[in-house]
Amino acid sequence: MSLIVKKFGGSSVANAERVFNVANRIIDDYKKGNDVVVVVSAQGDTTDDLIEKAREINPNGSSKREMDMLLSAGEQISIALLAMAIEKLGCPAVSLLGWQAGFETDSHHGIARIKKVTAERIKNEISKRNIVIVAGFQGLNKYDDITTLGRGGSDTSAVAIAASMKADICQIYTDVDGVYSADPRKVPTAIKMDEISYDEMLELASLGAQVLNNRSVEMAKKYNVELEVLSSLEVKPGTIVKETVKMEKTLIRGVAKDSNVATISIVGLEDTPGVAFKIFNKLAQHKINVDIILQSVGRDGTKDITFTVPLDQGSVAVKALEGMKDALDFKTLKMDDSVVKVSIVGAGMESHPGVAAKMFEALYDAGINIHMISTSEIKVSVLIDGKYADKAVTAVHDAFLG
Amino acid sequence: MSLIVKKFGGSSVANAERVFNVANRIIDDYKKGNDVVVVVSAQGDTTDDLIEKAREINPNGSSKREMDMLLSAGEQISIALLAMAIEKLGCPAVSLLGWQAGFETDSHHGIARIKKVTAERIKNEISKRNIVIVAGFQGLNKYDDITTLGRGGSDTSAVAIAASMKADICQIYTDVDGVYSADPRKVPTAIKMDEISYDEMLELASLGAQVLNNRSVEMAKKYNVELEVLSSLEVKPGTIVKETVKMEKTLIRGVAKDSNVATISIVGLEDTPGVAFKIFNKLAQHKINVDIILQSVGRDGTKDITFTVPLDQGSVAVKALEGMKDALDFKTLKMDDSVVKVSIVGAGMESHPGVAAKMFEALYDAGINIHMISTSEIKVSVLIDGKYADKAVTAVHDAFLG
Repeated sequence: MSLIVKKFGGSSVANAERVFNVANRIIDDYKKGNDVVVVVSAQGDTTDDLIEKAREINPNGSSKREMDMLLSAGEQISIALLAMAIEKLGCPAVSLLGWQAGFETDSHHGIARIKKVTAERIKNEISKRNIVIVAGFQGLNKYDDITTLGRGGSDTSAVAIAASMKADICQIYTDVDGVYSADPRKVPTAIKMDEISYDEMLELASLGAQVLNNRSVEMAKKYNVELEVLSSLEVKPGTIVKETVKMEKTLIRGVAKDSNVATISIVGLEDTPGVAFKIFNKLAQHKINVDIILQSVGRDGTKDITFTVPLDQGSVAVKALEGMKDALDFKTLKMDDSVVKVSIVGAGMESHPGVAAKMFEALYDAGINIHMISTSEIKVSVLIDGKYADKAVTAVHDAFLG
Repeated sequence: MSLIVKKFGGSSVANAERVFNVANRIIDDYKKGNDVVVVVSAQGDTTDDLIEKAREINPNGSSKREMDMLLSAGEQISIALLAMAIEKLGCPAVSLLGWQAGFETDSHHGIARIKKVTAERIKNEISKRNIVIVAGFQGLNKYDDITTLGRGGSDTSAVAIAASMKADICQIYTDVDGVYSADPRKVPTAIKMDEISYDEMLELASLGAQVLNNRSVEMAKKYNVELEVLSSLEVKPGTIVKETVKMEKTLIRGVAKDSNVATISIVGLEDTPGVAFKIFNKLAQHKINVDIILQSVGRDGTKDITFTVPLDQGSVAVKALEGMKDALDFKTLKMDDSVVKVSIVGAGMESHPGVAAKMFEALYDAGINIHMISTSEIKVSVLIDGKYADKAVTAVHDAFLG
């Protein structure tokens, strides 16, 4: 008998048939004697429909408080329907909104952070052997206003409940059946992993594997919540994400590709102290995440700085830096969006110095030129031309995992 | 400077254009310096769409708690959109769900009664000069579960807020521009009334005029809330509903038709004490409202009882009585749904004995036979063949008000 938290996304409950599919998955575990808490997102296109309604009222964007009021109705609909389906199948269920489930957040409407989950009501319902269905993505701030958690919010809701209730496992149902060593649609030899550590998962997620939202993995790591990524369609084990993972024969967990990347090059900067500080401080003020940084000495005592930013923040970064032209005194500023980042991730990498070399060799053999390199304790990333992306992933994957 | 509570129904906010129409009506009063609280129903077909979603899950009907969870999402959407529209037009607005507005109800899901409205949050927002948009039809029970108020719930929500806040007026916007002496689509000479008393309005509503829900008028009478029924489309005064109304030259306020009526006849009952008690006690147990009752002596020492019930409760009534055949020992039981009730309503009627006679004369002149008669202090009702309904209304209306 375990306490299991399950999270299903919007496409899993898009219509009545899928709602019953999800209900059956829940009931299977409930009938084995487990206590089950389920977090659900809004149905399929509901959120998009509600956003469109808001756009008809104000194409320039409405107040975030009212957007949260509007959007949180989406999960309210899906939790009620899922509870009805479970009841129809003969099991007791009760749906709870974010505030009823005890989600307290800060007041940043649209991107609220969870401050606390007071799961008293959930515990009370569980003690009556009810299956509890909780609206993901939403909470309440100290003014009693509804807030939403932003991107990946329902994953975070599920992990927060699991942490608060010390659940045995938090299962995140997705449209893939686990975490793979590379994108299985692109790399036929990609391997599904049985287990992966939080840190590895974080690197893979931030590198574009996009199976789990980083916020939820960070929270799971912080509160030591064991996660499982598994398929909402097929009944089979997925990939477990936890703190320490038994090392298998391979050092490398996976190869990830991130296309949401651009390079910005500032050429002909005066070579005086504080120049780099000014640049990256300005970008930080605009909340732009800088990843790989390359600094080189240019001609005539000047220097060049090249760095990568997320592609979707590129134009903001360029605009911010152009506004500093007088203060910085550089020659040219240009952005290149034709690049892609390919990375290998693996926890034991730091103690095996040959790993990076092996990756570079694989790329060399495939005739792919490397523009920039970045390494951390558990990953090696290279920046290459975007047109070689899939070729590079396959070459690197086959070298380590093929 | 007044405190004005306004209520708009679902068709008034069915699309973006109508939402802006409503927003402009609200802003007009706000800009005159008034404090404005607005109660809104779910948009146009939203409630029907949600009911259909529930039906797809369980055609036999889901639990009432989950239905309330589902349906209350409808007003959540409309209040957010209306607040957005008001903000777009440059005025400050804040939307509040039933529980945020302080609606405490009992636990009868689907037909909950309001126990208290703690309007602290509304007052707080009003004091900041915000226009407050409240979700009608919904509240919270003592277990922190969402409840809905049932038919006409949003009218009741508006009156409850007006009562709790001692508002100067509670304006109910509808698709007609006031209360008429008869249905203006059927009777061309129908007169719009400037004022009408609560009791007269209650009789007219219960008799099928259907402008205002009875529950809301009863509550308005109890807490002495002045109501105005007015058009959501045209800007002009409507009909005021209040305690004492100055008597105009005419004694009769209006003529109403009620088609939701059927007669049930029980023929050949044993003429012993307690028979009537058994019948009407049984109907009361099934929550069936009996209106006009006629008892007559039949042949062979038996008696017959005929009474009217709402048409939509007719088959339940018949089934309940058939189950008593052994206990009651009657000959036949039959229901007749081809009848209609036509009534005249007017507060001073009791002191003018000629009123009923004048009504009967008008029907006689029109060649319409009367089956049953019922009178109260402020109304006279007759039951006639349904096919004469409109003819009867016109004849009676012209006799008194033409």
